[in-house]
Amino acid sequence: MVATKKVGILGATGTVGQRFILLLADHPIFTIHALGASSRSAGKSYKDATKWKQSKPIPENVENMIVNECKSASFAECDVVFSGLDADVAGDIEMEFLKANLVVFSNAKNYRREPTVPLIVPTANSSHFDLIPHQRKIYGQDKGFLITNANCSTTGLVVPLKALQDAFGPLSHIIVHTQQAISGAGYPGVPSLDILDNVVPYISGEEEKIEWETGKILGAVNSDATGFDHLENTVVSATCTRVPVIDGHLESASIKFANQPAPSVEEIEKVLAAYTTEPQQLGCHSAPERAIIVNSLPDRPQPRLDRDLEKGQAVTVGRVRKCPVFDIKFTLLIHNTVLGAAGSSVLNAEIAVAKGLI
Amino acid sequence: MVATKKVGILGATGTVGQRFILLLADHPIFTIHALGASSRSAGKSYKDATKWKQSKPIPENVENMIVNECKSASFAECDVVFSGLDADVAGDIEMEFLKANLVVFSNAKNYRREPTVPLIVPTANSSHFDLIPHQRKIYGQDKGFLITNANCSTTGLVVPLKALQDAFGPLSHIIVHTQQAISGAGYPGVPSLDILDNVVPYISGEEEKIEWETGKILGAVNSDATGFDHLENTVVSATCTRVPVIDGHLESASIKFANQPAPSVEEIEKVLAAYTTEPQQLGCHSAPERAIIVNSLPDRPQPRLDRDLEKGQAVTVGRVRKCPVFDIKFTLLIHNTVLGAAGSSVLNAEIAVAKGLI
Amino acid sequence: MVATKKVGILGATGTVGQRFILLLADHPIFTIHALGASSRSAGKSYKDATKWKQSKPIPENVENMIVNECKSASFAECDVVFSGLDADVAGDIEMEFLKANLVVFSNAKNYRREPTVPLIVPTANSSHFDLIPHQRKIYGQDKGFLITNANCSTTGLVVPLKALQDAFGPLSHIIVHTQQAISGAGYPGVPSLDILDNVVPYISGEEEKIEWETGKILGAVNSDATGFDHLENTVVSATCTRVPVIDGHLESASIKFANQPAPSVEEIEKVLAAYTTEPQQLGCHSAPERAIIVNSLPDRPQPRLDRDLEKGQAVTVGRVRKCPVFDIKFTLLIHNTVLGAAGSSVLNAEIAVAKGLI
Amino acid sequence: MVATKKVGILGATGTVGQRFILLLADHPIFTIHALGASSRSAGKSYKDATKWKQSKPIPENVENMIVNECKSASFAECDVVFSGLDADVAGDIEMEFLKANLVVFSNAKNYRREPTVPLIVPTANSSHFDLIPHQRKIYGQDKGFLITNANCSTTGLVVPLKALQDAFGPLSHIIVHTQQAISGAGYPGVPSLDILDNVVPYISGEEEKIEWETGKILGAVNSDATGFDHLENTVVSATCTRVPVIDGHLESASIKFANQPAPSVEEIEKVLAAYTTEPQQLGCHSAPERAIIVNSLPDRPQPRLDRDLEKGQAVTVGRVRKCPVFDIKFTLLIHNTVLGAAGSSVLNAEIAVAKGLI
Repeated sequence: MVATKKVGILGATGTVGQRFILLLADHPIFTIHALGASSRSAGKSYKDATKWKQSKPIPENVENMIVNECKSASFAECDVVFSGLDADVAGDIEMEFLKANLVVFSNAKNYRREPTVPLIVPTANSSHFDLIPHQRKIYGQDKGFLITNANCSTTGLVVPLKALQDAFGPLSHIIVHTQQAISGAGYPGVPSLDILDNVVPYISGEEEKIEWETGKILGAVNSDATGFDHLENTVVSATCTRVPVIDGHLESASIKFANQPAPSVEEIEKVLAAYTTEPQQLGCHSAPERAIIVNSLPDRPQPRLDRDLEKGQAVTVGRVRKCPVFDIKFTLLIHNTVLGAAGSSVLNAEIAVAKGLI
Repeated sequence: MVATKKVGILGATGTVGQRFILLLADHPIFTIHALGASSRSAGKSYKDATKWKQSKPIPENVENMIVNECKSASFAECDVVFSGLDADVAGDIEMEFLKANLVVFSNAKNYRREPTVPLIVPTANSSHFDLIPHQRKIYGQDKGFLITNANCSTTGLVVPLKALQDAFGPLSHIIVHTQQAISGAGYPGVPSLDILDNVVPYISGEEEKIEWETGKILGAVNSDATGFDHLENTVVSATCTRVPVIDGHLESASIKFANQPAPSVEEIEKVLAAYTTEPQQLGCHSAPERAIIVNSLPDRPQPRLDRDLEKGQAVTVGRVRKCPVFDIKFTLLIHNTVLGAAGSSVLNAEIAVAKGLI
Repeated sequence: MVATKKVGILGATGTVGQRFILLLADHPIFTIHALGASSRSAGKSYKDATKWKQSKPIPENVENMIVNECKSASFAECDVVFSGLDADVAGDIEMEFLKANLVVFSNAKNYRREPTVPLIVPTANSSHFDLIPHQRKIYGQDKGFLITNANCSTTGLVVPLKALQDAFGPLSHIIVHTQQAISGAGYPGVPSLDILDNVVPYISGEEEKIEWETGKILGAVNSDATGFDHLENTVVSATCTRVPVIDGHLESASIKFANQPAPSVEEIEKVLAAYTTEPQQLGCHSAPERAIIVNSLPDRPQPRLDRDLEKGQAVTVGRVRKCPVFDIKFTLLIHNTVLGAAGSSVLNAEIAVAKGLI
Repeated sequence: MVATKKVGILGATGTVGQRFILLLADHPIFTIHALGASSRSAGKSYKDATKWKQSKPIPENVENMIVNECKSASFAECDVVFSGLDADVAGDIEMEFLKANLVVFSNAKNYRREPTVPLIVPTANSSHFDLIPHQRKIYGQDKGFLITNANCSTTGLVVPLKALQDAFGPLSHIIVHTQQAISGAGYPGVPSLDILDNVVPYISGEEEKIEWETGKILGAVNSDATGFDHLENTVVSATCTRVPVIDGHLESASIKFANQPAPSVEEIEKVLAAYTTEPQQLGCHSAPERAIIVNSLPDRPQPRLDRDLEKGQAVTVGRVRKCPVFDIKFTLLIHNTVLGAAGSSVLNAEIAVAKGLI
């Protein structure tokens, strides 16, 4: 590709920000141009401002970049701005960037429920980009727009659900249980005294996110592309726990289809394995070869063994079997800081470029 | 109590056997009289035969006891025999003991589905002891009998389910997800390479046990005390996983009641906290003061913090809340090697003594 | 014992404070009378002020005690004050208490190097209480005094070193390596992202503490009981690391004796096993039966299996063997929050009572 | 490179064997040609014979290769044979291969002490290849030879020691303490009940290996290239422990130089950072860019963050500082299954190719 897009990263010193930097280090169309963090970090070199906790070192070209405050003026040259900001500051900052006509891809929860802001999982509902013209109109921008990606656990869940919904029609009931990695809580995040030889059966706000976001993502853009038809007849119940795993959220789901008789285990495995998505068709750089990997071994997926498949951009599904209560149950794994966070944003941005929105 | 009962322990060198020894070390009515293990261990002192993995040392009076093979002749003087044998040998050995007119409390799965063998969780269905006269008749014994206790995860689940069923009538649907401790797999058990920084979403045979055993335990003894009325209208779907926790199985359950409208969260918490069981009423030594502990903190129960409450003989329940799909959901914790295994057997034996069966 | 002493606990809501509360819950001579913490906690019930992280629940009589600020006026009725304060505030507060004629046992580092403040490991150098009359003179108190206990790792090391020094004369060189539990860093303390699947080879200030404190503890009270003869010819080199263990510091030491030929492995094991200390002779409630437990199994001590022996007040030593470079090497284990912290203070206070100093 | 060498892997289904397969999957000069394992695996496809525990999947071209027994006849076409065999079988098998005129690179301990078998750490003593002509003469081979690589912990230690010895002359005393990853014990290896919330202060035979192997590796080939001058005046004392870390051995060493005054910390860091080795000069594919990485952050190296640097072929050194007892102390990290095992063999084989020995 010839043209290179300049990108900025907000919240660059945090866990999601560090993952953005790794994902963008050798990117064919994006080049890191500006870094934003809190005023405490502003003015420092990135190396001095961050507590780097990745197993790969800071890319050389980023080490000595000077960190800015998160003001749109410092990011005016950026074609794309990725936000890994915490929710307590993301609301104001991201809106200021949008109103400065900048393109923002956000990991924060603040605008996910906003009716004119798409909530996009790149391998599930990239069709929601269709709302951008309407959003630009609402906010009076000709270039800028704001896309959010979903909560990490929601992201893992909706990818196979979308494949099933496309193939077999609406899902009526979903009960899902998550076992979430500590990296999802950022740094310092989960104290070791809370999680060593332990499981914490609670993550604040997480269950509500899964139960609500699923309905927006699996819903369609309405007929005049001015909003989303939130699914009302797909009911989700989530239980979320934290486990002593570095990366990779494991989720167990039981599902009931609206249309009966429900498909067989074999039909479901076939549909999941064959699932193809728009970013793959568009040839996006970060698109996984397989959006869903079906693993037929009895004890998979496992976080440590499967999280890095497809560079963390796939969802691995295993243990597809009959559910005595609903129709089927299965286990899925998502890399929570790649597809579940920064990786979704990057792939969303690639889709937007491919669609000519940037 | 004046009279002291002599007890034997089969599978004494294994993980469950070690727990039996700790539980019986200073017991007011049971005294350890004989130890049984494989022929490889027979003839050795207990200290030399076992790889002791408990955080309390081997009781002094047990250290130098000589281990026997598991033949009834060596246990003829025992009033009670506790079996922590593995399933691959438990079947033949326990039957040989029963036919030698011995009283056997087994942790193995072999006879759980046997129509004339009670499957008893002491704080759920001690009424199932009523079948003993019939069982003795069947096997032609005047003194001996065989009781099994349930799978560790089933045990944790049925205690609150029984409380709810007693108070609010039958449960129609239960979806349960377990996060099970490594001690449940014995020693050497789970390789560390499989579980460090990982979760294994599969435990062979475990889901089937929960789904089936629940129906036997929550069912009633039939009218002429010759069998059990397995619940047919309570359907259970289980997903079982292994997590890097030493002791303590955590389970998340979603439940639908047959009778509608379902009880409120407050009514459920009240019923669980007030739940009283026969071994408590009989004043059994190992009975917990509270059979169910209701913890109202948002992030409890947790294995490391709650597993040792009531010396491991209680089930702790937390996070009782509305389920968007069913009626309610909650989280429970059971100490898998105490109430979930050896502790159930010991308490069952105390009940049998109190009922005059031994 | 008839007379009951009222005690206060400073830093009651922290990790060390929580351990003080557990150790003092059913104490025969001490009764918890007052709790102190930061102004943020003051005025709240203890239950609301603390994030309780122990596996035993908060004692009932403490749950609803109101927490005070750490001012001596609120502790005037206390016969003993235990301090689990952090170093950044301990200096001023403990001095204010001392000058208010109160008896203070401190876990903080602030006064350990003070020439007139004893640094006492109860099973190593309780003779250092002899300095109290001089200290009272210096600070103009007739009743109050200040005792510090040692750093947790130092404490584990000096117990066997004292036994060896007493038996075989001065030690010339000691190289020690520690693997320290996360509870030593308090709560929230070590982030889980730093320690899961990891070891951190650095603990700020820890190596210097071991290298210096050993010389004060193993030294004698000078002839007129006005100071301590710091050992100058015993040189210590320490390397300290943090490992994913909840409780229990493991230390490996190589030692050279000043007097040659050095004792044999057998002589050393014999001396360690026979080591008897003043609090044991005084019949102190918290004194371990064995101050040093010698474990001859090849792979012991281990934190999880041995830390709770003697209720955490012993040091377990194993792997005593020849060192190719020095004379001997061995491994030791100390429960860092019991004998390594709160347990030392409690036992020190019991010694002081037994000696008539309180 | 034009010519491609065919390689065989013995012990292909084990932990070291799996690492060989990953390292050789896309190798520019080696191509996997034959796999050997026990008779239990022979005849099966690799996929079915192994329990794959790597976070990357089995390379496609290896999945369906048929596993052979470890007999030289099946490996006759191999230019190089890598052995990841366990010590209990490696002795006979490797000798049979050598006598069949095959080139063997072994990870087993069996021939490390053999006077005519080089014990080579590729970034420390590749000069020991000079003995090959003599070895061939002894065993009557014209093409075949046998090279062993060192124990994983020894390997990490000798790389910086060699750099220091080259620059500052002989080392007189070394006291080293290791914290070793569970992958070093293979699969199933360390039971999780032994290592979760725990450290095991013992690894059978490990300390003796470090203490002896160091002297052979750091010694020179004798003047007529018929043997090695084992260092007699460099005394090593090792203590080895197992920690809950997946990959990466951490070691802390205290060192005394024979020549005094000893070099300063700065001189040592400079020498370590500048250390260059033969495989780098030969342009070997697997040679690290830096054989030693000096990390000056106070809390590094750490296994999880640093083990994958230079694809696991470097040793990372940190915390270089004065030792109060000896001259200096420092911490090092080695990836135990790459440079510490399979990676050493592969790099040794590349050196041998570059030297024209294969």
